[in-house]
Amino acid sequence: MNFRSIRYVLSRIMLAEAAFMVLPLIVCFIYIPWDNDPMKAVWAFVISIAALVVCGVLFGIKAPRDGEIFARDGLAIVSLSWIVMSLFGALPFTISGATATYVDSVFETVSGFTTTGASILTGDVIESLGHGILFWRSFTHLMGGMGVLVFVMAILPMSGARNMHIMRAEVPGPEVGKLVSKIGKTAKILYAIYLVITLIETVVLMICGMEPFDALIHSFGTAGTGGFSNRAASIGYYANPAIHVSISIFMLIFGVNFNIYYLVLLKQFKKAFDNLELKVYFAIVGVSTAIVTANIIRQIGSFGESLKLSFFQVSSLITTTGYATYDFNTWPNLSKAIVILLMFFGATAGSTGGGFKLSRIIILVKSAIREMKKLIHPHAVSPVRMDKKSVDEATVHGTFVYFVVYASVLLVSFFLLSIDPVSEDPTTSFTAVLSCLNNIGPGLNKVGPAENFAFFSIPSKILLTVDMLLGRLEIFPVLMLFAPGMWKRRRAMSKARLAKIYAEDDKRLGE
Amino acid sequence: MNFRSIRYVLSRIMLAEAAFMVLPLIVCFIYIPWDNDPMKAVWAFVISIAALVVCGVLFGIKAPRDGEIFARDGLAIVSLSWIVMSLFGALPFTISGATATYVDSVFETVSGFTTTGASILTGDVIESLGHGILFWRSFTHLMGGMGVLVFVMAILPMSGARNMHIMRAEVPGPEVGKLVSKIGKTAKILYAIYLVITLIETVVLMICGMEPFDALIHSFGTAGTGGFSNRAASIGYYANPAIHVSISIFMLIFGVNFNIYYLVLLKQFKKAFDNLELKVYFAIVGVSTAIVTANIIRQIGSFGESLKLSFFQVSSLITTTGYATYDFNTWPNLSKAIVILLMFFGATAGSTGGGFKLSRIIILVKSAIREMKKLIHPHAVSPVRMDKKSVDEATVHGTFVYFVVYASVLLVSFFLLSIDPVSEDPTTSFTAVLSCLNNIGPGLNKVGPAENFAFFSIPSKILLTVDMLLGRLEIFPVLMLFAPGMWKRRRAMSKARLAKIYAEDDKRLGE
Repeated sequence: MNFRSIRYVLSRIMLAEAAFMVLPLIVCFIYIPWDNDPMKAVWAFVISIAALVVCGVLFGIKAPRDGEIFARDGLAIVSLSWIVMSLFGALPFTISGATATYVDSVFETVSGFTTTGASILTGDVIESLGHGILFWRSFTHLMGGMGVLVFVMAILPMSGARNMHIMRAEVPGPEVGKLVSKIGKTAKILYAIYLVITLIETVVLMICGMEPFDALIHSFGTAGTGGFSNRAASIGYYANPAIHVSISIFMLIFGVNFNIYYLVLLKQFKKAFDNLELKVYFAIVGVSTAIVTANIIRQIGSFGESLKLSFFQVSSLITTTGYATYDFNTWPNLSKAIVILLMFFGATAGSTGGGFKLSRIIILVKSAIREMKKLIHPHAVSPVRMDKKSVDEATVHGTFVYFVVYASVLLVSFFLLSIDPVSEDPTTSFTAVLSCLNNIGPGLNKVGPAENFAFFSIPSKILLTVDMLLGRLEIFPVLMLFAPGMWKRRRAMSKARLAKIYAEDDKRLGE
Repeated sequence: MNFRSIRYVLSRIMLAEAAFMVLPLIVCFIYIPWDNDPMKAVWAFVISIAALVVCGVLFGIKAPRDGEIFARDGLAIVSLSWIVMSLFGALPFTISGATATYVDSVFETVSGFTTTGASILTGDVIESLGHGILFWRSFTHLMGGMGVLVFVMAILPMSGARNMHIMRAEVPGPEVGKLVSKIGKTAKILYAIYLVITLIETVVLMICGMEPFDALIHSFGTAGTGGFSNRAASIGYYANPAIHVSISIFMLIFGVNFNIYYLVLLKQFKKAFDNLELKVYFAIVGVSTAIVTANIIRQIGSFGESLKLSFFQVSSLITTTGYATYDFNTWPNLSKAIVILLMFFGATAGSTGGGFKLSRIIILVKSAIREMKKLIHPHAVSPVRMDKKSVDEATVHGTFVYFVVYASVLLVSFFLLSIDPVSEDPTTSFTAVLSCLNNIGPGLNKVGPAENFAFFSIPSKILLTVDMLLGRLEIFPVLMLFAPGMWKRRRAMSKARLAKIYAEDDKRLGE
């Protein structure tokens, strides 16, 4: 374990977070005339920034001697960064008194950074909060969206190999692919795309009549596929259908693999759009919207209204954003079943969305079909193909393993959450876990879109917080922190031997 | 495709079923003085037997020239046998007027043969049925329990290789192992064990004060881990706690891998009990019983009563029997969550129980842990070990694939069942599918233990019937029937070349 490097990266993370926290502080000052007790929030941010700077400087006081970061270090760095950022990011909520306990604050912050959007704040509390706190709450979505680490990498002078290990753990989806090459430059371009689309959405929402602050908040929530709103009724608060449709479309845009935008920028249109995952993504959106529309039309009355509602909710769920314009708890059973299935799927790999990821599902289905073919024609062995390239067997196997680990986490969490007597029915406990693990936000029944997560006990909130982190980091990096042998220093070995073993490890990891 | 052999085996199956149907006919005659309209049932069985004999003779009129059966033929034979047996086995229900439609009859028969125990008969109807029909309904559990095919194999003079292909598709669980060697003899011994334990249970239940007919019916239901009862209240009808405890224990006995009894007979006790799956099985029963007991004690009142109820329900669910002594729909959420988790697990491989099978779960968990270890120590590659033997990678991979296919069937069926507006909530539709796919019987909410499957629409009943077959035959053999290329005759090839290709296939299948 390269403890020095880990410590050093964490120090940079803290300082970066301190810098980001200046933004909500500025917002606090701007809105002093309009907020209740504005100085409370100002002090909350000042104290939090001070804590981050002090810890950041202390952690970073010694530069690492040995600059190399290996696979296991990369995994540890990613997990620890998210945990450290969340623990510090929670301070403003606690200090300003927005939440009842520190666990609540951490839940809310992790929900923000992981772009889940599940909230322990009730509607009344949300609408009474100051602008600075609301800004920070939603800004965590923007930061979490593309992975804070990629940002840090882009500005830290690191070697290619080192970044790749971090990237592998950070970027959602089974294959990193193109993203990894020329990491620094690519990261900057991706960030530019990300921020430009967010800005466009803000402007569009303002044109549709949203207040500038609300437009910013909801653009942050859309960009990170998060789902925090500053309104108790979420997007349902706004009457203008143009707002609903615009946000539906922008949610879908942020659920698309950013590689595709990159390819579009490079004018490689054919390569960009000849993408199976993308086709499946839009096919699911289309089919689900059609079914839900037909299913709810009797309840809603008009076709247009049903279409608008179902398109919004389908887009919100498949991208794992979690915004709502209607309480789908009241929908008929078929639509609820589609809600649950969409929660399973998740968005595309390489997007800001969470969930299991469509590309994984495609790989699993394709290889299952291949196995069945093998039973009939055992002599016809063919690789799993996707977008005219064959998927290597290590990726296929890794996807199977991920599915098993994912299902295990889901079932174990479902069992643990059921211990809490407040989650009265299996649908509540199951969809609460599913929603947190897939970084969506709302679930069904008691965690439906018109509800919140405030009623859970402290242990349940901690469990769901862990689930959100597991989901966002795709489980392995977080579980690794608890693996025996992970923290061994291997003192007895010479540095040269250690480096050799690590290098071998890296090689075997398929670099 | 060896059509002649398939046709010939199907002919034997029909004749065997006709022979078995003589038993309920005898029961009809015995109970003539007590039954309402007894001749209706007598005629129902006579007509059904006649139909089976006629079809059986017509199908078997030509003996197969080429006696060899290959993997794909084996899969087809197994699936077709279950389907043919169910279609004919449903005739007595329809002809005697016990069910409203032929689809209902097929549902009930498939539920019997697959040892599911889900019923489309309401409590009133069940209690009004004649003894012959009730006997046939439960006798299908006994027949289904160990796989009708194994029986046919034991009496048909077949070569070892041929049997193995059928066996592979028939015997539940990832590994056939010991069972396969000396198939004919082994099958006979296993049947002897099976029937002797069933007989012991019948005697025990009679000693506990159950009427002889009821004792027989419930022994059939236990032996096959089926769950059909001739009482509307299932085992809850009987007041004597000794009956509840006895059936709990016998359910657990039939949920144990029959290999273990075989080893016990051979006095290889150490080998028999040093079995990880067995330990996990009893550990789950113990832990689940303890948690449910603690969870329901407030609702039930006394500790003893809670323990008795929870032990019964846990045994019933993990063995996929589905008998009930209490409506667990009324239990608190934690117990319901355990009900759902137990429904997922299933019994041990090589038992008469259904479900996903514990050995598969053990393999999946162990190999997932191995993959995580690999992330930390990539140079330490070790096989997945179970009971001191390493599980070969083909089995590990096959288990992963099975899990994916299983989950896909579960989710697709859940979606399709949700289209039926009568399944008002996701818990009903999800547990209905889970219960049928895992061959359990009851689910939660509208398919809870105090309910039945009568209210579903015809398409939903067909879907659930298919799910029961898929679950019992472990999916692949049934899906294969619809695979393109499965039914190709390959006329153009010479017989020698065909045999060579098939033989190669067999080799590659890892024989």
